[in-house]
Parts: sequence; structure tokens; C-alpha cells
Amino acid sequence: MGATALILAASLGDPAGVGPELLAEAWTRRDETGPLPFFAVGGAGLLAAAARLRRLDVPIARIADPADAAEAFLEALPVFGDEDVPYDPGRPNRAGAALALASLRGAAQLADEGRVGGIVTGPVAKARLAEIGFAHPGQTEFVAEASGTAPDDAVMMIAGPNLRTVPLTIHVALSEVPRLITRGLVERKARIVAAALRRDFGLDRPRIAIAALNPHAGEDGRMGHEDRDVIAPAVAALQAEGLAVSGPHPADALFSPRGRAEFDVALCMYHDQALIPAKTLDFDAGVNVTLGLPIIRTSPDHGTAFAIAGRNLAHAGSTIAALRMAGECAARRQAA
Amino acid sequence: MGATALILAASLGDPAGVGPELLAEAWTRRDETGPLPFFAVGGAGLLAAAARLRRLDVPIARIADPADAAEAFLEALPVFGDEDVPYDPGRPNRAGAALALASLRGAAQLADEGRVGGIVTGPVAKARLAEIGFAHPGQTEFVAEASGTAPDDAVMMIAGPNLRTVPLTIHVALSEVPRLITRGLVERKARIVAAALRRDFGLDRPRIAIAALNPHAGEDGRMGHEDRDVIAPAVAALQAEGLAVSGPHPADALFSPRGRAEFDVALCMYHDQALIPAKTLDFDAGVNVTLGLPIIRTSPDHGTAFAIAGRNLAHAGSTIAALRMAGECAARRQAA
Repeated sequence: MGATALILAASLGDPAGVGPELLAEAWTRRDETGPLPFFAVGGAGLLAAAARLRRLDVPIARIADPADAAEAFLEALPVFGDEDVPYDPGRPNRAGAALALASLRGAAQLADEGRVGGIVTGPVAKARLAEIGFAHPGQTEFVAEASGTAPDDAVMMIAGPNLRTVPLTIHVALSEVPRLITRGLVERKARIVAAALRRDFGLDRPRIAIAALNPHAGEDGRMGHEDRDVIAPAVAALQAEGLAVSGPHPADALFSPRGRAEFDVALCMYHDQALIPAKTLDFDAGVNVTLGLPIIRTSPDHGTAFAIAGRNLAHAGSTIAALRMAGECAARRQAA
Repeated sequence: MGATALILAASLGDPAGVGPELLAEAWTRRDETGPLPFFAVGGAGLLAAAARLRRLDVPIARIADPADAAEAFLEALPVFGDEDVPYDPGRPNRAGAALALASLRGAAQLADEGRVGGIVTGPVAKARLAEIGFAHPGQTEFVAEASGTAPDDAVMMIAGPNLRTVPLTIHVALSEVPRLITRGLVERKARIVAAALRRDFGLDRPRIAIAALNPHAGEDGRMGHEDRDVIAPAVAALQAEGLAVSGPHPADALFSPRGRAEFDVALCMYHDQALIPAKTLDFDAGVNVTLGLPIIRTSPDHGTAFAIAGRNLAHAGSTIAALRMAGECAARRQAA
């Protein structure tokens, strides 16, 4: 990658959601967004309108080449690409979904071509994208495929100022979770997490805490056998490979201040086990990072929030944190 | 109940655990332990030795009647009852387990007779108690029976400065949880919680948030049917009774600062869903309260911690908070 890659591409998300207004605010707070400048993929008129409604002064600079973004960024929010729709916050529609998809696709392609150092994806409505033929379960799987990665090798991490967690299972019923937790799953994801924290987060030997599935880690099988029979053997195998892995830890005390001091990332068995502590501690500053990809990809840790879009109520903290984290990771990869 | 009931009885817990030293420290910090004085049930020599090892100046005053405790408390830690063992921290044994049980039984009996306003129970080791014939799953069930309450009507609540949560299922494997969550269970426990928060915590119309079992509350059945088919009907029925109940709420955002502002207590479906946010937010100040009993009962939210007993490492915050909460609840009941 050349020097032009030291910039980030941001996709708009659903234009009827809070994505555009938060991207506009992030540009006004560019002293907080980290080491790299960024540009939006499409939506020049949309972004200008969203900024006006939020009472922000955000000049827009159309750019013909991502390489022009760094200079333009000093005076305006750069926009690459012509796709656009009228701003109609809170009212998602097919044209908006098509713009969200085009913006995501454009950003992913620029990253795959090495023309940007990383991408930050705005929040989309999966149901809306499905209506226009989007066949992926979510943006993560789309980005994985666009970068030539098997979906199983893309790992979602929630990272905030106080905590990093990885859910090993995500959007499944709680009753499905115990049978989905296998020794192979724990080991494979732990290796991906260890490699990514080394490469992109600068942790030489990341300390990985593995949460137990059952209360009190099952008390040696008295309250569920999985911790003893599935997770503990995975921990032992990972330790034998030289990774700094510990567990299975009873999940209740794992996220207390003393618990958190002992690890760099916690691997959790299910969605709420990872997301409850993350949102409890870092609600407005959590970032969703996809580990294991050849490209850097982050996104704010919230949805489209159609109900409050255009009303100057959404917090830009998570978008700003996502831009900062993508920039730091991209700069670290370039320096390596 | 007469005026003598405006005092608390504290059981020692396992004498080899951290219970005795924390009770001794609590007396030295009696400006923090709330409105009511307290006394220990048994362990006069034990408490003196534990205090010495923790380098605390704690005079012991043997009392012949709980009614004498309030006056004695001003100058010394009062002890009622003759049972005692040598202090041998970190080395649990049968004599210690017998003392733990005698202390618990004595405290519960005093409460049942109305001779104290409430009890605070120190941490015990269930396996040790089982060895000497204790047949209850835990202290909560023992206290329930001793006060003539069906075990199902005793509800555990974890309460800290930032959050109150109630786990509807507790010490069971995660795979057992979905089938244990029934409409009847949710409704029965919610009613007990509502009545107890009104009577003992002074909340006229407690706001009860009910957490969802599945991620995103199941997204209308796409990720687990229980939220739609079991929990939502229970919420509707409770609302129809006039209770301030809401949910099922996606559990991940429920414990963020904005989420917590909307409720007084969260009913959670399983152990870690209730205990992760509680221990993340209030690690050294959480109190385990048993709701639904004719007596007031609290305990610190930690175990015997044999590994650090006698080493001046255990934090007294949870014991102090348990004493304060029991005293506040007891004073409120007396005033009613």
C-alpha cells in the first residue's frame, strides 16, 4: 500500500437513520477522530442536509480521487462518488437502502484495492437491505466476502475505553447456544483474536480471558458440563500453543474492575454475555471491530435509530470512536 | 415487635473464611453501617483473634440479652451466645462448620421471635455445611424455612448503589434456563418483588424492568420464541394488575446509564444476566437481599474467600453495605 492508504472511507449507513448526521458531526470534531482523515462514500447532498438540520457548519468537498481526501479534509468533509438521495430522516425507503448498499460496496472495494487504510461502516437496517436483494446476514459478512475472507474467519469484537469482548455466538436463540459452543470454535476464534490484537492493536502477547458458559463456571460439572468438558480443554490446548489464555472464568465477576485488570479481551459464549458488560461500561463509546480480515473495518456499536434520526438526539461518541480506532489500527499496520 | 427489635443480628459465616474479620472491621466503621447497631451470634474469641490479625482495635462485649446490644455497641462489638472455635483462617473444618450453622440458626431464631429487626448472614461454604448434615441448598432456603416461608416465595435480589437485579433462575446450567422460564414464574416473582420494594425499600410504585431471554428480545420470534410467547404475556398480565412493569427489554442496553434510569429493579432470566451487570457496576458494595420473608435478611455478595482469609486483603464494603441495608429496611418496617 502506498501513502494514499493513510485515509479512511466511511459508508453512510441507511440515509434515513442517524448515520449521516453523526458522520457530519464527526467531521466538526475531527480533533477527536484520531490520526487519519476520512471521507464519505456518496451522499454529498444528504450529508449537507443532515448537517444543516443538526445545526452544524459542514462544508462538503466533492473529490474525484481518494488521494485528494487528506488535503480536502482540512476544510471540508470530503465525499467520493456521485450516489445520493434526498434527506428524509426517519423514513427508510428502497432508494435509501440502495444508497446504503452502494456506499458500503464502494468503501469495501476501495479497501480491498488498498486505496484506503480502512473503512468505517454506518448503521444499516438489515430488513431494508434484504428487500433490495442483499443476501448477507449483515455488513460484517458482506465485508468479509468482499475481502476474500471466509465468514467464519471474521470475528466481531466490541471495544470501548474500559473493555474488549468477543461473542463466540451472536444472533441465535439462547437455547441454541450450548450446542454451538465447541472446542474447535473456541480455539479457532481465540487464535484469530490473538493474531489481530497483536497486529492491529499493538499487544505483543494479548491476554485472553475465556468466560464460562454456566454460573460459577459450572462448579466442576454440577451446573452444566460444558465448562469442564468443552471450554477447559480448549483453554489447555491454546495455552500449550503458547497463547496467554485463561479460563473458563465465572462470568459474573469477570468484568469487575479487578477482573478486567487481568485481561486484554474476554471471549464470551453468547451475545448478551459479551454485550451486557460492554454496553454497561462503554455505552456511548463502544466500537464494533471486525477481526481477521485483510482490511481494517470498524463501525459504531448502535443501529439506525430511525426514531431519533434528524432530531439532533443521537450521540456521535461511538462514530468518533470507530473512526479513531480504525485510524489507529490502519496506521499501525502501515508502520509494521 | 418492641423497641428491642431495632437492632441487627449478624451470623459469623464460616470461621475460616473472611466473615469474622469483615464483621470486626464493620464495627470499627460503624459510622458507615447505617441506622441500627448490630451484634454477632457467637464467636467472641474468634472475632477478637480475627480483629488482631487484621490489626484492628475491636473490644468484645459479651451480652446476655439482645436488648443489651444497643448500649454495648457504642464501646465494643457485642457478642450474644457462647459458641466459639479457635481462629484458623483458610483452614475450614467440621467444628467451624458447626459454629457457622449454630450462628446462622441463632440469628434466624432471634429474628423469627422478633428480638432483632433483621439479620445479616456471613458467607458459608455449602459443601462444608453439607458434611455436617445441613440439607438446604443454601442459607436463603434455611432462613426461608426458619421463618415459615415456602422456598419459592423467597426471592434473591442483588442490590448496590447503581443497580438492583433479581435472577429468576439461579444455580442451574444455562441449557436448563429456557425451559424453566414460565409465565407463572415471571408473574409470581414480579409480584413478590413489587410488594417487597414497596414495604421494605419505600418505593410507592416500583418500576420493574423485565429482561429478555434472547438477544434483541428475540426479534419477534426470529431468535428464540420465549420473549414473545412467555415473557411478553407475563408483562401484559402484570400491567393489567396495575404494576409498573415493562419489557421484555433487550438485556444488552438495559444496564447502560440511560437504561438504568428507567427502572428500580430488573428481573433477569438467569444468574449471569443478573450478576454480570451487578458485579460490573457495584463489585465491592453489592448486597444479597432475600425478599418475600417475614423477616429482614441481607448478606454480603461474596463467598468465604478462604484463600485470602486472615491476610487483611478482603474488602469490608459489601458487609458494611449489607448491614446498612438491613438496618434501613428494618427501620422502615418498624415505622410503617
